[in-house]
Amino acid sequence: MTLPPTIEWADDRIRMIDQRRLPRELVTIDVTTVDELCEAIVTMAIRGAPALGAAGAMGVALAHVRGDDVDAAAAKLVATRPTATNLAWGVQRVLAATDPVAEAQRVAEEDVATNRAIGAQGADLVEDGANVLTHCNAGGLACVGYGTAVGVVRAAHERGRALHVWVDETRPVRQGARLTAWELRRLGIPCTVIVDGLAATVMANGDVDLVVVGADRIAANGDVANKVGTYGVAVAAHHHGIPFYVAAPRSTFDAACPTGADIPIEQRDPHELGDVPDGVAVDNRAFDVTPAALVTAYVTEEGVRATPLR
Amino acid sequence: MTLPPTIEWADDRIRMIDQRRLPRELVTIDVTTVDELCEAIVTMAIRGAPALGAAGAMGVALAHVRGDDVDAAAAKLVATRPTATNLAWGVQRVLAATDPVAEAQRVAEEDVATNRAIGAQGADLVEDGANVLTHCNAGGLACVGYGTAVGVVRAAHERGRALHVWVDETRPVRQGARLTAWELRRLGIPCTVIVDGLAATVMANGDVDLVVVGADRIAANGDVANKVGTYGVAVAAHHHGIPFYVAAPRSTFDAACPTGADIPIEQRDPHELGDVPDGVAVDNRAFDVTPAALVTAYVTEEGVRATPLR
Repeated sequence: MTLPPTIEWADDRIRMIDQRRLPRELVTIDVTTVDELCEAIVTMAIRGAPALGAAGAMGVALAHVRGDDVDAAAAKLVATRPTATNLAWGVQRVLAATDPVAEAQRVAEEDVATNRAIGAQGADLVEDGANVLTHCNAGGLACVGYGTAVGVVRAAHERGRALHVWVDETRPVRQGARLTAWELRRLGIPCTVIVDGLAATVMANGDVDLVVVGADRIAANGDVANKVGTYGVAVAAHHHGIPFYVAAPRSTFDAACPTGADIPIEQRDPHELGDVPDGVAVDNRAFDVTPAALVTAYVTEEGVRATPLR
Repeated sequence: MTLPPTIEWADDRIRMIDQRRLPRELVTIDVTTVDELCEAIVTMAIRGAPALGAAGAMGVALAHVRGDDVDAAAAKLVATRPTATNLAWGVQRVLAATDPVAEAQRVAEEDVATNRAIGAQGADLVEDGANVLTHCNAGGLACVGYGTAVGVVRAAHERGRALHVWVDETRPVRQGARLTAWELRRLGIPCTVIVDGLAATVMANGDVDLVVVGADRIAANGDVANKVGTYGVAVAAHHHGIPFYVAAPRSTFDAACPTGADIPIEQRDPHELGDVPDGVAVDNRAFDVTPAALVTAYVTEEGVRATPLR
C-alpha cells in the first residue's frame, strides 16, 4: 500500500502527515505560516533529514508567497533543528531560486526519485532470506516518500526477496516502533520490534546479516551523525563482524564539515524520556556520531562506496 | 536517607515496596497469600534477583503459616520468573528448614549483610572523581536493602569519594530511570539518566571510567544473565577499553548451569513496549547473556575476582 507524501505543496499551504499521531492514526495537517512550520518541525510532526530538506524548501517558498521577510524566515527555519544538514540545504536551494514555489516542489519531487535510486543502488546488499536490522526511521516518513535505509530494504522486497527486519524501538521518541514498523507493515515486509538494548543480542545469536541506517549529516571524513543509539549499533555490528551501511542522499553529505566532532548535536527536552525522579539530571542528546571506520559503505543515489563522497 | 526494606516479614504477612508506583510515590503493600505474591512478582511490584530470593523464601514461609500445600506453593513461586536463580534458591532454603518463618527472616537479614560486604569488597574499584555507568536497577530495591552494583557505588560514596553515575533508562520497564535514579537521588549521589542508546557515546567521549551491573544468574563458566541491554553495554565497554564489573551475591552463581546458553530467558508481555502498530511482532526478551570473556571481574561478598566462583 502506498503512503501519501510525507510533505507536499498544496495551494500555497504545506500539507504533511502528522507523525506525532502515528501509529494510532494517519492524519495530515496544513501549515500556513512559517511559525507554524517551525512548531511542526520542533515538535516532530515532521522529522527525518530528507523530509526536513523539503520542509525547509517549502518554508522559504511559503514566506515568499506570504510576502514575509524571506531571510528572517530562512534563519528561523534553519535554527529549529541544528543536526540534520538537509534542512539548511533545502532552505538555501529555494533562497537561490528565481521561482521559489517551483523550486520547492522540485526539491520534493527529486527527493522521491533520489530515494528510489538509493534503493536501486543498495538492493543487492540485501540477499534473499536476509535479516536486516535498522535503527530509528529512515523510511518514507523521513523523506518525501520511499525512504533511504527503508528504501534499500523496500527495493530488495520489490525484487521478490524474502527478508525480515529487526526494528529498534529507538528511544526516546520511538520512531522505530511507531513509524518504521508501521511503514514496513503497510508494505508487507515482515518485521519485529525490539528494545534498543536487545540489538546486540540478536546480532550475537547470528540473526542479523546486515545493518542499514539513515543519516542526518555526513562529515567530509565520513563520520555519520544519526539518531542517538546508532553508534552503539555500529559498535555491536563491528564486534560481530556484521556489515553496517549508511543510506543517504548526496544532500546529507556536508563538505563544509570536516569531521563528526564538528557536527552540532541537538539536546532535546528531557521530558521526552517520560517519568524521571524530581531533581535528577537527564542528558537527552538526540543524535550521536558514528566514526567512518565503523561504516562498511555509504549507499547514495550514485552507488555503494566504502569511502564518503565529496 | 535510608530506604525502608524492599521486602519484610510482618506479622505473618509479606510487606513490600510497590515498585510499580515509583518514582511517583513510595508506598508499601501487604501480601497475604502465595497467589498474591506470585501476582506481585509477575507484575514487578517486586523484582531484582536478591529481592526475589527473599520473596521466594517468605512465600514458602507464608504457605507454611497458612497451612497451604507447601510444595505446590514452592513450584508456583519458582515458575513466576525463570531467569533469576535466587528465586529458586530462596525457596529451597526455606523448604529445607525446620522453622520456615525464622529461615525466611534469616534470608532477608543475610541479604543486607551480604550486600554491605559486596560494597566493601568493590568500593576501591570506584576511585575519587569516577564516572560510573550502570544498567537497570541493582540497588536496594533489587535486594532487601543496600544493593549490589549500587552497593559498590554507595560504599565508595560512604568513603567520601566524589562520583557520578550514568543511569541507563533500561527499556522497556525503565528500572534505571524509575528506580536507580530515585535511589541515587535519595542517597545524594549525583547521576544523569540517559536513553540506553546513548551509553556507547558517553563511553566514546571518555566520560565513563567503569561499568558495574548486577546479575540475575551467573553460569558455572562465568556467563552472566542480566537485564536486556546489559550485553550491548558490555560490548561497548570492551570496544572502549572500559572495565565491566558484575556485582552479585554467591546465591546468584548457579553451579548447576554450565554456560549462558543453558539459562532460561524470560519472554515478557509485548505491551511492556507501549504503542506498536497492530499486527507487528515484538520480541520482548527480558534478559540477555554477557559472555564471561567480557567481564573484567565479579564482585561478591568474598572478594573481587577475574574468574567466577564455583
